[in-house]
Amino acid sequence: MKCILIYSGGLDSTVLLYHLIDARHEVLALSIDYGQRHRKELRSATAICRRLGVKHRIADLTTLTPLLAGSSLTSPEVKVPEGHYAEDNMKATVVPNRNMILLSVATGWAISVKADAVAYAAHAGDHAIYPDCRQEFTDAMEKAIALADWHSVRLERPFVTWTKADIARRAAELKVPVEQTWSCYQGDEVHCGRCGTCIERREAFYLANVSDPTPYAPNAPSVEELVANDWKLTA
Amino acid sequence: MKCILIYSGGLDSTVLLYHLIDARHEVLALSIDYGQRHRKELRSATAICRRLGVKHRIADLTTLTPLLAGSSLTSPEVKVPEGHYAEDNMKATVVPNRNMILLSVATGWAISVKADAVAYAAHAGDHAIYPDCRQEFTDAMEKAIALADWHSVRLERPFVTWTKADIARRAAELKVPVEQTWSCYQGDEVHCGRCGTCIERREAFYLANVSDPTPYAPNAPSVEELVANDWKLTA
Repeated sequence: MKCILIYSGGLDSTVLLYHLIDARHEVLALSIDYGQRHRKELRSATAICRRLGVKHRIADLTTLTPLLAGSSLTSPEVKVPEGHYAEDNMKATVVPNRNMILLSVATGWAISVKADAVAYAAHAGDHAIYPDCRQEFTDAMEKAIALADWHSVRLERPFVTWTKADIARRAAELKVPVEQTWSCYQGDEVHCGRCGTCIERREAFYLANVSDPTPYAPNAPSVEELVANDWKLTA
Repeated sequence: MKCILIYSGGLDSTVLLYHLIDARHEVLALSIDYGQRHRKELRSATAICRRLGVKHRIADLTTLTPLLAGSSLTSPEVKVPEGHYAEDNMKATVVPNRNMILLSVATGWAISVKADAVAYAAHAGDHAIYPDCRQEFTDAMEKAIALADWHSVRLERPFVTWTKADIARRAAELKVPVEQTWSCYQGDEVHCGRCGTCIERREAFYLANVSDPTPYAPNAPSVEELVANDWKLTA
């Protein structure tokens, strides 16, 4: 099939990119610049697509930032929370309606190039703090996407039943250049090793029993400390 | 209620703006610049909102134009078709997935300002040549929008059972400054009076038996000629 991959440059969507190419699908990668603090992920996306010879477009939606205010991912004045994903502190990382906006733009591109599907790297660990990660939301979007044009576009989520550890394991199998992907919400020189997405990434490699080649900041807690604290930060 | 109105500056959405204000709702108006040839509608939207003291934002999505290529509304090399809406020639005016993109951005803004609803001026005459005007599409979007955030946003379409003539009649009742609205797909100095949306607009005022204050181009056929030709162009 020919598909548009919603491609952040993070671990999950990079593994999905390799996974789809491994299955001999034709992939066009779409990244969205929505003014995220961790814009480094866009550079990762570009570098990895160039390496693979995959057609890559970055849709610039930064002009929407004033409309979609209030998330720590786009507003410099809101602090990125540290620690494990949890109802309370991670709500600040919600960008209003991000998934619907991403899917609508990807579907527009899919219709325009007559692609069969839009793919994205939703997985079983996706967090209930994000309302637009709920199954009912995705079911409704899947239906809307199929009806958006006469030529019906499918919504593909090959990892939807996988844990993040399954994805880390697949990364190793496919020799994905994990160290080139970017997850950290902080967007500093190296992964902070302390924010929700860093903790989740480190936990995945640990549970998969696969080595994690990601360089983390010197002040990040060690995996041993994190395991001892049940993946909570001591601080 | 507090609602985000998807506001093009055309006849239908301007009448809806007046209609919602008449019912004492709080309205925030959202226009989208998607690189449409008829950008004059954005100037109409701005002027009318200023006149009414309505908060108005234009979301700049022109960077998406290369992704959404192929429509005569955004591609200067594709000719705007003339005549009545009909399967064959009007398909060139389809912008891939426009409605989903508009709704997703409007919903993002609604979530961000805690609005109760997103409103738009779909009406009974909306054309089956646009796949994303189908009822099943809207039903799926309505469900997705309600699930996009914990705070549920409604999709309001007060004109969905109205004909365009009903809208023209309501325009007269509410003293809407019809001559300030912009419908024409050509985007010249005055309405061309010959493209699908001009013909539809003229037909609506004729059927509503309401005078149409819109100035049309000198070479446009007269209403009498159009009526005699069953609203088809002689040319």
